[in-house]
Amino acid sequence: MTSPANTNLSTLGEFGLISRIASASKQGAGVITGIGDDAAITALTPGMQLLTSTDMLLEDVHFRRAWHDPYRLGRKSLAVNISDIAAMGGIPRWALLSLAIPAGLPLDFLDDFVRGFLTMSEEHGVSLVGGDTCASRSGVVISVTIMGEQFPERILRRSGARPGDDIWVTGTLGDAALGLKLLEKQLPLPEGEGRGEGERNFLISRLLDPTPRAAAGLALAESALVTAMIDISDGLLSDFGHIAGQSHVGGLIRIAELPLSAPFRACSVHFPELRYDSALTGGEDYELCFTASPANRKIISDCMKKCGIEATAVGIVTSLSGVRAVHEDGSPYHTKMNGFKHF
Amino acid sequence: MTSPANTNLSTLGEFGLISRIASASKQGAGVITGIGDDAAITALTPGMQLLTSTDMLLEDVHFRRAWHDPYRLGRKSLAVNISDIAAMGGIPRWALLSLAIPAGLPLDFLDDFVRGFLTMSEEHGVSLVGGDTCASRSGVVISVTIMGEQFPERILRRSGARPGDDIWVTGTLGDAALGLKLLEKQLPLPEGEGRGEGERNFLISRLLDPTPRAAAGLALAESALVTAMIDISDGLLSDFGHIAGQSHVGGLIRIAELPLSAPFRACSVHFPELRYDSALTGGEDYELCFTASPANRKIISDCMKKCGIEATAVGIVTSLSGVRAVHEDGSPYHTKMNGFKHF
Repeated sequence: MTSPANTNLSTLGEFGLISRIASASKQGAGVITGIGDDAAITALTPGMQLLTSTDMLLEDVHFRRAWHDPYRLGRKSLAVNISDIAAMGGIPRWALLSLAIPAGLPLDFLDDFVRGFLTMSEEHGVSLVGGDTCASRSGVVISVTIMGEQFPERILRRSGARPGDDIWVTGTLGDAALGLKLLEKQLPLPEGEGRGEGERNFLISRLLDPTPRAAAGLALAESALVTAMIDISDGLLSDFGHIAGQSHVGGLIRIAELPLSAPFRACSVHFPELRYDSALTGGEDYELCFTASPANRKIISDCMKKCGIEATAVGIVTSLSGVRAVHEDGSPYHTKMNGFKHF
Repeated sequence: MTSPANTNLSTLGEFGLISRIASASKQGAGVITGIGDDAAITALTPGMQLLTSTDMLLEDVHFRRAWHDPYRLGRKSLAVNISDIAAMGGIPRWALLSLAIPAGLPLDFLDDFVRGFLTMSEEHGVSLVGGDTCASRSGVVISVTIMGEQFPERILRRSGARPGDDIWVTGTLGDAALGLKLLEKQLPLPEGEGRGEGERNFLISRLLDPTPRAAAGLALAESALVTAMIDISDGLLSDFGHIAGQSHVGGLIRIAELPLSAPFRACSVHFPELRYDSALTGGEDYELCFTASPANRKIISDCMKKCGIEATAVGIVTSLSGVRAVHEDGSPYHTKMNGFKHF
């Protein structure tokens, strides 16, 4: 997909845009008919159930064009949806992409966006099978629906956590929240010779180009050791709170155990409150949070390492309701920040 | 779902809104887990394939709040998606609803919208199983994904039309286009005592509250007599053009055969050009267009009557490519209007 310099959407038209996207997308497992009819036709693996989720991203609400290059925006649009399938222990399969496009948006923006979207889709074996395109009178609107599948007995829900279970998280927490603070210029880079740029790029990349933990989620589902799972999109306290609510339990999170990346540590070294608050309440890391019996701690840790990722036990499920963060001595840690509120 | 007069979205919050919608929705066939986890879990009927489609509706692009009451807007948001499943001969099953909501939108608007959406869903046995809600900095954005199912041998595609087949349409054409002209005050009401209001309401209702032809689409799929099908969202010429393109055929549409409603005839009586152009190129009627051998004309007509709808053979599939409208004497009819263009 390359375009002459002056091509824009008006000259290309809606059907031109759709065939442009369709011709660039590859069709993988289970696709009977992709883009081009009234509905896509796909076939599930016999015995598996269907998993579906959808996310909408609005310009100047969820992303800014000044900060987010179209390639990484395309990747993220699909990544956040793949993350939802990962959180169920499912296999991501097919996606629908709807775009509302302001007049005058350069075709290069769209080409880069679609290239990013399709790169992410190929990395995870997801086929783009349909969608919708229309004009927007304000900003870019992106709506993605993902479909995945899994055998019923392997699907992991938010309910199922039991008192005494470990609370686990994959990867590191708070990186995306610090990345946002760096973009907003609310946080200085760490001082010292030649420092800062690498850390800055890592943290911002965690925000703009998150990696969905699809392989880890699937491995955990296949291990049959996990009692509940969710992805961390709104912050650990808030998202574990959903597990706690639907499992009718509570939880203690030990702040000393929170997994923090080296760039996160470097950038937050002079801001101890920001550190724990970002790790506890910062959204958009798209790591997995799950619960499992402490008896399986080593198996789970090894299982995650085989997926190329560290997982960390950060707390314990309690029979008492409520989710609390605690210091090493057990005294409560009170956050100043809250999870992202939409309204 | 009733709300105190001063309740708004800020006091309700995102999770309050979601649980409000979830508590009002009923769960039908194949739903394992609906709203409330990272993804919905549903089970297809064994042997059937999955049909998926999605549509995005933007305020001031696809609808105006001044014209479209929220109840009928909710109905239409789902109806246009059910229409896509109908056009494949599928059984509509599950839907995802994403809403971007401007600050200050009255909660009553949302309640009426959701009530309309859920009424349409109950009429067609569709379960609302998930979605997304977020803030909008401009107008209301609605994105709906629908999932349906059907046995592979019954699914009807746009390809498959054969030269010599009849071209059929269900219901009447052009009503929604005239309804829009009435709203835009580009068309006067017919003259005469006590006339006009009924016609006006019918035509506007066809635009604001279209009826998806789900039962008819399903009956046609089960009849095994139909060679290709599509729904008419952009206008007959444009939409049959997709059948023609994907079937590698052409078609002749006889304008004298176009099915026109009595209100349409009354309102267009003094505007003969507008009449045929609206019926040929007016979008949003959401009727079905399909092709079948002339040998099956009576069976098909009877089959549609059993579904409570008239179907009309309006033309013939040709081996010569291109879609043309013709007068009774075979001379070409040239339209002045074109199908809806998004860009």
